[in-house]
Amino acid sequence: MSNKETTKDSTKELFSVLVKEALTLSNSEPLLKSVLDELIVFRQSFAEVLAMSLSRKLASSLLSRSQLEILFLSTYKENPSIVEDATADLCATMDRDPACKSYLEPLLFFKGYQAIQAYRIAHVLWKDERFFLAEMLQSLISQKFAVDIHPAAKIGRGIFLDHATGLVVGETARIGNNVSILHGVTLGGTGNETGDRHPKISDGVMIGAHAQLLGNIHIGKGAKVGAGAVVLEDVPPHVTVAGVPAVKVGRPENALPSLEMNQNFTRDTNSKPAK
Amino acid sequence: MSNKETTKDSTKELFSVLVKEALTLSNSEPLLKSVLDELIVFRQSFAEVLAMSLSRKLASSLLSRSQLEILFLSTYKENPSIVEDATADLCATMDRDPACKSYLEPLLFFKGYQAIQAYRIAHVLWKDERFFLAEMLQSLISQKFAVDIHPAAKIGRGIFLDHATGLVVGETARIGNNVSILHGVTLGGTGNETGDRHPKISDGVMIGAHAQLLGNIHIGKGAKVGAGAVVLEDVPPHVTVAGVPAVKVGRPENALPSLEMNQNFTRDTNSKPAK
Amino acid sequence: MSNKETTKDSTKELFSVLVKEALTLSNSEPLLKSVLDELIVFRQSFAEVLAMSLSRKLASSLLSRSQLEILFLSTYKENPSIVEDATADLCATMDRDPACKSYLEPLLFFKGYQAIQAYRIAHVLWKDERFFLAEMLQSLISQKFAVDIHPAAKIGRGIFLDHATGLVVGETARIGNNVSILHGVTLGGTGNETGDRHPKISDGVMIGAHAQLLGNIHIGKGAKVGAGAVVLEDVPPHVTVAGVPAVKVGRPENALPSLEMNQNFTRDTNSKPAK
Amino acid sequence: MSNKETTKDSTKELFSVLVKEALTLSNSEPLLKSVLDELIVFRQSFAEVLAMSLSRKLASSLLSRSQLEILFLSTYKENPSIVEDATADLCATMDRDPACKSYLEPLLFFKGYQAIQAYRIAHVLWKDERFFLAEMLQSLISQKFAVDIHPAAKIGRGIFLDHATGLVVGETARIGNNVSILHGVTLGGTGNETGDRHPKISDGVMIGAHAQLLGNIHIGKGAKVGAGAVVLEDVPPHVTVAGVPAVKVGRPENALPSLEMNQNFTRDTNSKPAK
Amino acid sequence: MSNKETTKDSTKELFSVLVKEALTLSNSEPLLKSVLDELIVFRQSFAEVLAMSLSRKLASSLLSRSQLEILFLSTYKENPSIVEDATADLCATMDRDPACKSYLEPLLFFKGYQAIQAYRIAHVLWKDERFFLAEMLQSLISQKFAVDIHPAAKIGRGIFLDHATGLVVGETARIGNNVSILHGVTLGGTGNETGDRHPKISDGVMIGAHAQLLGNIHIGKGAKVGAGAVVLEDVPPHVTVAGVPAVKVGRPENALPSLEMNQNFTRDTNSKPAK
Amino acid sequence: MSNKETTKDSTKELFSVLVKEALTLSNSEPLLKSVLDELIVFRQSFAEVLAMSLSRKLASSLLSRSQLEILFLSTYKENPSIVEDATADLCATMDRDPACKSYLEPLLFFKGYQAIQAYRIAHVLWKDERFFLAEMLQSLISQKFAVDIHPAAKIGRGIFLDHATGLVVGETARIGNNVSILHGVTLGGTGNETGDRHPKISDGVMIGAHAQLLGNIHIGKGAKVGAGAVVLEDVPPHVTVAGVPAVKVGRPENALPSLEMNQNFTRDTNSKPAK
Repeated sequence: MSNKETTKDSTKELFSVLVKEALTLSNSEPLLKSVLDELIVFRQSFAEVLAMSLSRKLASSLLSRSQLEILFLSTYKENPSIVEDATADLCATMDRDPACKSYLEPLLFFKGYQAIQAYRIAHVLWKDERFFLAEMLQSLISQKFAVDIHPAAKIGRGIFLDHATGLVVGETARIGNNVSILHGVTLGGTGNETGDRHPKISDGVMIGAHAQLLGNIHIGKGAKVGAGAVVLEDVPPHVTVAGVPAVKVGRPENALPSLEMNQNFTRDTNSKPAK
Repeated sequence: MSNKETTKDSTKELFSVLVKEALTLSNSEPLLKSVLDELIVFRQSFAEVLAMSLSRKLASSLLSRSQLEILFLSTYKENPSIVEDATADLCATMDRDPACKSYLEPLLFFKGYQAIQAYRIAHVLWKDERFFLAEMLQSLISQKFAVDIHPAAKIGRGIFLDHATGLVVGETARIGNNVSILHGVTLGGTGNETGDRHPKISDGVMIGAHAQLLGNIHIGKGAKVGAGAVVLEDVPPHVTVAGVPAVKVGRPENALPSLEMNQNFTRDTNSKPAK
Repeated sequence: MSNKETTKDSTKELFSVLVKEALTLSNSEPLLKSVLDELIVFRQSFAEVLAMSLSRKLASSLLSRSQLEILFLSTYKENPSIVEDATADLCATMDRDPACKSYLEPLLFFKGYQAIQAYRIAHVLWKDERFFLAEMLQSLISQKFAVDIHPAAKIGRGIFLDHATGLVVGETARIGNNVSILHGVTLGGTGNETGDRHPKISDGVMIGAHAQLLGNIHIGKGAKVGAGAVVLEDVPPHVTVAGVPAVKVGRPENALPSLEMNQNFTRDTNSKPAK
Repeated sequence: MSNKETTKDSTKELFSVLVKEALTLSNSEPLLKSVLDELIVFRQSFAEVLAMSLSRKLASSLLSRSQLEILFLSTYKENPSIVEDATADLCATMDRDPACKSYLEPLLFFKGYQAIQAYRIAHVLWKDERFFLAEMLQSLISQKFAVDIHPAAKIGRGIFLDHATGLVVGETARIGNNVSILHGVTLGGTGNETGDRHPKISDGVMIGAHAQLLGNIHIGKGAKVGAGAVVLEDVPPHVTVAGVPAVKVGRPENALPSLEMNQNFTRDTNSKPAK
Repeated sequence: MSNKETTKDSTKELFSVLVKEALTLSNSEPLLKSVLDELIVFRQSFAEVLAMSLSRKLASSLLSRSQLEILFLSTYKENPSIVEDATADLCATMDRDPACKSYLEPLLFFKGYQAIQAYRIAHVLWKDERFFLAEMLQSLISQKFAVDIHPAAKIGRGIFLDHATGLVVGETARIGNNVSILHGVTLGGTGNETGDRHPKISDGVMIGAHAQLLGNIHIGKGAKVGAGAVVLEDVPPHVTVAGVPAVKVGRPENALPSLEMNQNFTRDTNSKPAK
Repeated sequence: MSNKETTKDSTKELFSVLVKEALTLSNSEPLLKSVLDELIVFRQSFAEVLAMSLSRKLASSLLSRSQLEILFLSTYKENPSIVEDATADLCATMDRDPACKSYLEPLLFFKGYQAIQAYRIAHVLWKDERFFLAEMLQSLISQKFAVDIHPAAKIGRGIFLDHATGLVVGETARIGNNVSILHGVTLGGTGNETGDRHPKISDGVMIGAHAQLLGNIHIGKGAKVGAGAVVLEDVPPHVTVAGVPAVKVGRPENALPSLEMNQNFTRDTNSKPAK
């Protein structure tokens, strides 16, 4: 399914790959040795790497780097599953982004990857009823990465957010596993009433750039939403929709279009889903 | 019209509510006590709270936190009406955003709210013919909040900017009172000639996510622009438009769709405006 | 073609104009004297001005202001042609943006201008096979300016990026000379395969706000892409396209629509290219 | 007694003098306008000036500028007498230092003045049994100003610490009113036993540079300690001591040698105290 | 020998005491919780506590906090004995300083303690022939703590530097174990020739405030140097010297005057050393 | 006179030696490459090196790094002779300090060297009647380096300040050429009257650690002041004084004791000055 090195199946393996990449890179680019040492080489686990790296990005006048670092470290300690989510997301990104050549790149450079990992912390805080702190984190993510994910939203693993600028995910949105979402996408609400009012995205869905999905609608497994679509109604599984408002235009070539990352919807018109 | 606590009718009351919220929050979340004390509890007016909070967000290598703080404080002192605008905007946000549970949230966390308050300062500077300084502020807002509002634009009060990322408002644009605008919206120009070339938005209008409104067009009172619409012509009052390019698709359910925040336009097809 | 002061034909002249503007401005706005002295008046060349100004904007926990300053200065020294590109871009911006009244404004305030100059540095690093460092720069640009240009993309001179928030330019994209691009535009790929997979934009093209151009398609010389269009196929020279998906709707009024900056496409229906 | 402008008798008057000095200075030295505005002109009381100015000097990785500012402001509010002490110290410094030409100089520049005002805060914290916080402040003062005053020490008002580098004042030391102390002076203990073990300095005493006063000894009113003296025994009132160990060498020319600041002790041999 | 809690005999025990002290303190002084968490509670060893704390104090434009942290951590890893030295010094300080009530105080607040631990790092670098880096550290220590210890000097363990401001220790100086040194002391050279030219201090010596010891002289075991003395010749064991130049004035009351910390030398005249 | 590499006779040569040292050092200690590049290798003159290096050390909340850098660069431009003084001081330090092995060390690490170069700037400002700014610089020097030199003092070239902590030089003091001064020294005043009241130090004088020189006294050419001396009267040329108060104890072995750096005064008793 991927012509790259098979994705690591454990966080531990991933960590040792990152250290190797960092050491190799330090040799060829001495300018970066000190930051790679600090963020990767001198760390003792992938969780520590994440905590250090995210806290440097999100530090602000509201919460200092040290306060964030401690908050993240303790959250990871008590919630090891979100570190595994982070591993799955990193592997998904490596698999699906043809411009990505090392695990270090998304980890250190992709604001989509960083935003979703920070959201995972905020989501834990939200579940612990530390609502205000969770919203503060949401605010920092929105200001630093231009990605606005409500901490109450529920998001699976193996998520790839490409480019990410402008992504909005509302309070009652739900995203399954192995979903790929381009930049400028909205999973938005319709109306000022509280209650379940945001989209539900099933496993394997691919959502093209600048697509606007609005309301408590259901996007079926393996569906594909074309770039620039405005989706206001349910989308059945393995169907491609496009247009303003969006209508069915065909079926994705692949059972899981999120792995393929093909934003073009014109060629889907007569296709059938591959196994 | 709102099932939340009635909006405060004065800046002074709002300030005392903020202090109470901050004190309550400090108790439940000690991590935030020091920043809440500094930004809210130890201040003496809502104007001071705004000046402190905005200057921390916008500080940069061009203008330091202290320089901004002084600039904002003195601008508020001589232009008390923009502090009242800020009060109205905060109440509007609290009223219309179902995910918002306290006044502190938009004040401290919503970049739409913060961007528009900083624009209000820049607008005063522009009117005082301090053009370059006003543009510097515009630039800081654009870089920190990804919101680009020209300081010469004219904007009323009771404005709610939801999510806000990517909003663009041009030099000769005009926005009335009680307007709600989602993220990714453009009030843009058409052409490289100077002169009146941007949209005019009337009271009570609701503009959905990623709508592009271009040229010196007039959007009538209580109109609604669907998400993803590209609007190139005038829109009459109490009409819903959608599509690329946008056409009339119905009428909003409500006389002031900005209060309702319903981005869905399919159900508007046969509806009549409620009084 | 432009009713403003004729664009300077050399980097040296531009530099002396900038110094004059800075001195005039320091007089009328003493608050800015110190930053203008530092960034403009005390510098000895336009290259130095660029290096100082960009490094202040892009400084982060990954690369310090000083590290960036040195990197930029040495890159400019060995690649003087990208300083000339920067001159051409600054003149293009001044010419085409009616809201822009001095050369200092785009230089210091426009994140589109700043992003493309930083990209030019990253592109040199990429050609020198310093891939990771180039990607780090791309990441800084994306986080600070919300503009995501892959360092391998090839971009001509005389480029004007208006507002810029959310622009995405992929790895194998190519942009000619004298092109104007609005905010929210994507030059994106289609699929997870490596290889030539992004749009090619010819000279003089104008791309409206939030247009999505996807795949290895060719946009002909002097073509115009309407705001909000989703373009999935080739566009012939001197043709206007619009809609989702985009279709031909007419011809631009002008041979080089990028100079005119008219995003409206409805009036192009029956027009013929001038000149 | 002083050929300078009569010292202000109230904190309020002093504050208005400081504002006037700052405004005059801003005119002649525009480089300093912004810092003078921030620290003096835009403040509303002398207490606020002190809190702002000291917190900027003492900010560190242990306590941030904001944390210190809030701590100082609230301490001044509840202990107005230490603001009056600060007024008296400023007037004393102005009176006795011939190189000092404005009240702004000691306020902003003299680390002796700043150290003693910070000590006054620490002393209040100590009396409130916030021992650790008081010691943290002592540590910050020692690291920033090279002045080490234990927060439990008791110090009167009208104190002038000239140059100040290296001053050490121990836990059970006591200093009266109108005392002048040069740099390098120690009021130190003798032994590792807790208990009353440091010098007691009466009103009007002058202690020359690098004098070492050790143990629970009593220095009488109007006494003078020569530069470089090592004092291990009581000194009677109106007596000059000098040498290692110190012996009586004469009597000060003046009843209050602290006002005269004459470190020379050779001419005191036969003199009698003036009234 | 000490009426305080018996000194911990292992670094591990010390670390757990520090954590307990930090937790207790966080409760009574919430303002400090975040810094205590970061520096103590969330660390995993005393070495890590030292590295974090020292790097925050010494960070500068020459070496960043992160660079120092990494340098210190790796030095401690490869030289565990200097961590044990740090334990011994902390216990010595606790034992001999009557004003010191917890292990946290010297660790976080005493610049003498911090300076000597930073010197221990520099000394390892010097022995590894990283001379310039060692001198850079010496320079940082001198600027931040006003303590100037040459990295080539050799210093034992159980050292207590009280107040510390102005201490100077030259390149070929040697200090034994269990020595106590007050502020303002110089172990200096005589002349511009390279070679062995600084004092050698034996075990158990106590050197009073501002004493100047110059040249390749030997201070015998258990000797005491009075405050303000200028010592230019050898001092035999268990002898007290004082004066300018220093002469023998008696014998310390105690075999190890460094434990007693009595700077007074007048009472030593007829005394005999206690066992 | 010196057994080291002959001192460079021009600032230009010195600059090229510094660049060579920096390049060599960058190779052996990659951790320092970035700071050495920034401060030395990428600079174009010794004046620029000084301005960059000093401004980084002295930056504070009163004057930013950039403000200082610009101030220093412009002062050097208009007063090239103080750059030559800085060259002479650097060579003097290299010559007389046996622990100093490269020109980079005093330049980057010795606070005595840095303090005197910053004083030279302040002195120019004082002569230009920018008194307050000069005093602000004096204050920064005192707080960062623990060296307090009044900007009105007059100081020659070829000055070596060893260790430097605690040095105080008063308003009307004068220091000739080729003088060496140890730490803790005071050139202080006697009394609160304005007027000429501080010591005058002739060429070639050596002043030992912690010596206190007080009043308008004259120290003759080639004289030597012993460590810890308190000097209250004139000292003839080529004489050694010591003690409290200081008396003549002999003659320096060398015509210019400042070159020899011998603080010991006991061996001077019967010696004659060498030619």
